[in-house]
Amino acid sequence: MFDLKRYLAEKRRTVNAALDRLCGEADSPFRIVQAMRYSLLAEGKRLRPILCIAAAEAVGGGETHALIPACALEMIHTYSLIHDDLPAMDNDDLRRGRPTNHIQFDEATALLAGDALLTMAFEVLAEGAEQEGPDPTRRLKVIREIAVAAGCKGMIEGQMRDLAAEGLVLDATSLEAMHSLKTGALIRASVAAGAISGGADADRINALLHYADRIGLAFQVTDDLLNVEGDPLVMGKAVGTDRNRGKSTYPALMGLEGSRRFSHELIQEALAAISQFDDRSEPLRAIAGYILHRKR
Amino acid sequence: MFDLKRYLAEKRRTVNAALDRLCGEADSPFRIVQAMRYSLLAEGKRLRPILCIAAAEAVGGGETHALIPACALEMIHTYSLIHDDLPAMDNDDLRRGRPTNHIQFDEATALLAGDALLTMAFEVLAEGAEQEGPDPTRRLKVIREIAVAAGCKGMIEGQMRDLAAEGLVLDATSLEAMHSLKTGALIRASVAAGAISGGADADRINALLHYADRIGLAFQVTDDLLNVEGDPLVMGKAVGTDRNRGKSTYPALMGLEGSRRFSHELIQEALAAISQFDDRSEPLRAIAGYILHRKR
Repeated sequence: MFDLKRYLAEKRRTVNAALDRLCGEADSPFRIVQAMRYSLLAEGKRLRPILCIAAAEAVGGGETHALIPACALEMIHTYSLIHDDLPAMDNDDLRRGRPTNHIQFDEATALLAGDALLTMAFEVLAEGAEQEGPDPTRRLKVIREIAVAAGCKGMIEGQMRDLAAEGLVLDATSLEAMHSLKTGALIRASVAAGAISGGADADRINALLHYADRIGLAFQVTDDLLNVEGDPLVMGKAVGTDRNRGKSTYPALMGLEGSRRFSHELIQEALAAISQFDDRSEPLRAIAGYILHRKR
Repeated sequence: MFDLKRYLAEKRRTVNAALDRLCGEADSPFRIVQAMRYSLLAEGKRLRPILCIAAAEAVGGGETHALIPACALEMIHTYSLIHDDLPAMDNDDLRRGRPTNHIQFDEATALLAGDALLTMAFEVLAEGAEQEGPDPTRRLKVIREIAVAAGCKGMIEGQMRDLAAEGLVLDATSLEAMHSLKTGALIRASVAAGAISGGADADRINALLHYADRIGLAFQVTDDLLNVEGDPLVMGKAVGTDRNRGKSTYPALMGLEGSRRFSHELIQEALAAISQFDDRSEPLRAIAGYILHRKR
């Protein structure tokens, strides 16, 4: 029986150690490094890096092949949280149980810390010495996948649509399109980066992208559910905020029960997409279940 | 006799056409693309891309080898201007003769347009089909050089120091260190990226880095001079702003005459660094002179 809890804890430890090593020094005198590390090394699920590593393992690659892309993905995810929290965007004070970056430091520093984490993601992806395995062409492909997913045709366009949608009621199609960009693109890129680093062929990459697409949306549906019925102490952030801001959500669109049913269906589709994979994809299957039942 | 004016006009045309092609469509319905293009395709000197191409040519490479890195550098430069202009940073309303991005659009859009341009720089650097020449290893080196220069050990740390220094009087050493990071790092990376793309060996790259270091500082000194005695109509931005903000500048430190003399010395050092290069470095020599005598 596969022990997901242990797997997640081990991978989190590996990822956290690598992030700590890649991003400055714990006692750095530089305020920008302090601000980057404050958000990057905060308690986090590390979903994207773990998906990246699990995808590499599912296609027969090793953890070392995917560790650098995994860290780069977490840097990009963290930068997007810092910028999303800024007063000009969602204006949030609390994140991962602590004051947001611009509250802890200041707005200019938070803006620059986000910029610096995004830039560092590409710095580590292009670094030579530390990385075992992937040949240069494969590494360029990984950089390309991640940049496209994070950019104006992916995550950033999703953020634009999210901002534009505030106070409007989106239908299911528009809501899914928005999430597919805002959170889905980087989750797909996480799985793709792992698969490419692990040496997957096009068929396997496509199957994994389908898996990622479905769990990405399920993740968002459960996010919306947690914003209604979650425990703020467990989650480290406020609940009820979507409703207060007039955001379109799945519970608003299809009710709590309908949203739960929908997230179950999505996870079934995700599992079907990788049903032909062997035992090495057990972590990916278990992560799909985790997304459904997570409490934070 | 080398015709710099014509050279700059030709390269600007080439770079502008490539930027136009790489960054969305002129009639894009996407607000994020409109915001990116608004700043990226605004009138600009294109100093960094032209230095990149001229460095590639100086070591025997062709324009096509350096065009993609050249465009990536301009995207990064433009993102840094958009973020610098935001209310949380310098809070500027005018840039390149037009309203700044957050005035023309809004703060959230400007923030995301900057993020998107930074991300797109790495997207195009990792793109395969469009780029002739450089092998994957060389391209990873270029990505690395640019990311390090733009990140928390380069341009962003320079910006942090610039913000921290407002209202303080810096000595010559601190002022040079700040500029070496804030503008110098990306100018050095421009020359390095061109030289690497053009196939230069380590000795030539080092000579070119010395050249770039000196013209980068000279550029800043003339920038400070223009902020005192420039014509706002020619420059497309306000003058006297450094003084109003209590910024440390070369004119404040060593007077107008002293600053002019210093910038002359820097250009002489830059020319000495590449004195062993053949005729193909004529554009780099002429650009050094242009930096000294520019009006905007």
